[in-house]
Amino acid sequence: MTFPLISLGIRYEPGRLEILDQQVLPHEVRWLRVESVDAMIEAIQALKVRGAPLIGVAAALALAECGRAGTPMDQVWDAGVRLRGARPTAVNLMAAVDRMMASLPLGLARFIATAESIFREDQELCERIARNGAPLIEDGDSVLTHCNAGGLATAGIGTALGVIRVAHESGKKIHVYVDETRPLLQGGRLTAWELEKLGIPYTIICDNMAATLMRSGRIQKAIVGADRIAYNGDFANKVGTYGVAVLCRFHSVPFFVAGPRTTFDAQCPGGAEIPVELRAETEVLGLAAGLGGLRWSPAGAQAWNPSFDVTPSELVSAYVFEKGVVTQEDLKARSLGDWLKD
Amino acid sequence: MTFPLISLGIRYEPGRLEILDQQVLPHEVRWLRVESVDAMIEAIQALKVRGAPLIGVAAALALAECGRAGTPMDQVWDAGVRLRGARPTAVNLMAAVDRMMASLPLGLARFIATAESIFREDQELCERIARNGAPLIEDGDSVLTHCNAGGLATAGIGTALGVIRVAHESGKKIHVYVDETRPLLQGGRLTAWELEKLGIPYTIICDNMAATLMRSGRIQKAIVGADRIAYNGDFANKVGTYGVAVLCRFHSVPFFVAGPRTTFDAQCPGGAEIPVELRAETEVLGLAAGLGGLRWSPAGAQAWNPSFDVTPSELVSAYVFEKGVVTQEDLKARSLGDWLKD
Repeated sequence: MTFPLISLGIRYEPGRLEILDQQVLPHEVRWLRVESVDAMIEAIQALKVRGAPLIGVAAALALAECGRAGTPMDQVWDAGVRLRGARPTAVNLMAAVDRMMASLPLGLARFIATAESIFREDQELCERIARNGAPLIEDGDSVLTHCNAGGLATAGIGTALGVIRVAHESGKKIHVYVDETRPLLQGGRLTAWELEKLGIPYTIICDNMAATLMRSGRIQKAIVGADRIAYNGDFANKVGTYGVAVLCRFHSVPFFVAGPRTTFDAQCPGGAEIPVELRAETEVLGLAAGLGGLRWSPAGAQAWNPSFDVTPSELVSAYVFEKGVVTQEDLKARSLGDWLKD
Repeated sequence: MTFPLISLGIRYEPGRLEILDQQVLPHEVRWLRVESVDAMIEAIQALKVRGAPLIGVAAALALAECGRAGTPMDQVWDAGVRLRGARPTAVNLMAAVDRMMASLPLGLARFIATAESIFREDQELCERIARNGAPLIEDGDSVLTHCNAGGLATAGIGTALGVIRVAHESGKKIHVYVDETRPLLQGGRLTAWELEKLGIPYTIICDNMAATLMRSGRIQKAIVGADRIAYNGDFANKVGTYGVAVLCRFHSVPFFVAGPRTTFDAQCPGGAEIPVELRAETEVLGLAAGLGGLRWSPAGAQAWNPSFDVTPSELVSAYVFEKGVVTQEDLKARSLGDWLKD
């Protein structure tokens, strides 16, 4: 089968939408056919499809398929409303659904074309982010990353991991330290899997080991993705990101955030306004069902499981967007929102 | 059976030495009879018996049993040498073995009595540490702890967790945030198990969640144990401790270390001289054998697995010893080593 639209984590041809089940990677490469918007909502909530840009793309394609199947327009609209609320933090999901909804009155062909555009644009945004960010990584650097902001999280080569990839492919000698990223282990499973395929040298660490690595001078840069960037530059990303940012500040390690404009939320003034998803305690009390469902904590134990945290803008050394790189110095002249508008 | 010496993790009567297998807790309460020094070395290396003070106690009792069984003195000596090297970081092990070896020429009765003294003294040290430290915890505090420095890590009520316990028992309303402590999950398994038994309210978090908790003001204190405290006050503890200390400094949260004098190493000038054990990569690439042996990282993945990290003295708000509390202010007048000598 040849899919006109295909990336590491999603593939689509009219009548057939499939996602790579990211809960069973890397041991199993299992493509799942998604046949309804509600099935896509379930896949998004179970993190079978994940990554802020990718869930936007996946939502758009699920809506396109819903329309293509002849669903009445009001039901497509309702499906869009449900999809928009599938997860609360990554704004790409809302942005993609809103764009689809705006194209709904323009007819089915335009509706489907909008979803395809969202896919292709995300690929292009990744390329441009990676090209812009690669010069920030120097030959010989060891770079820390948290969670997965790679090809699996986007329709393209990734954001933070795309930057690393392009730097690597330009001939720089780079080593990646991969935070395993508890509780769902997107680093130890997914980022490691991507780096393995790309042939980029890497070492997995437990999240709590980054501090001592930095103290010993073995990390030169840190780069992460984002799930929502507020107008003032505060941003939400996978829980643990804020701690990495604090450690970077303490050890004078530059800390970069890479994201497309679809991750920017001009309506959100600051980090305090970003809703943070709380997930099931069982993910922290052991391994989530998709990862084996093992529980190691005692009966009666309680846990706290925020899926994201918020990092204040002042801890960001530079933002890498498709438009270019924005440093703290740049933010003295004008706000991030103003910079992105121009 | 009534054991004259019994604690949460070890029990002894002449001719019978047993440890509670800490790799299968909390789901299974499995006592293992340890019938030779080499079996004890294996148990220590597999972290079936763990915790800096407890491995010292366990080593002493294993040697006492070895002598009691009629083993020739030179073989007891050789066993002591092997035992001393079972794990490199916690100095309590070396200190306990050295004390046993010093008593070896004094005859079997004294040799066995020395081991029993080491056990009973550790209980007493814990009590005194807990009483000294409890006033540092205030009514209403939420306290973060990392790894397990409780009854399972000592022959008594624990060090850091003993402080929390006595504060709780004095009627203060305390909530404990428990770092799960990857890779071996001593927090999520063992500290949670102890707190559950003690009826002290607690919440398990992934290690990477402490930062955002601190930022939101939900942690008032942090307290940890130690595996070795150098002359200048730098100390080694379970990997991740240094990161907690940095986060505490950044968020102005007091950071306390509790330990008995047996954790202090007057011969070690500073943190740079503390040997840090590196353990098997498989612990980071998934779950250790004792915890299920699951692997989630891709084939070919590499990991880094230091069992400990070193926190510099300047990040410690106060040390809690059996002799009393030593603050940074106290260290301006005289060094930690001088303070402990008096």
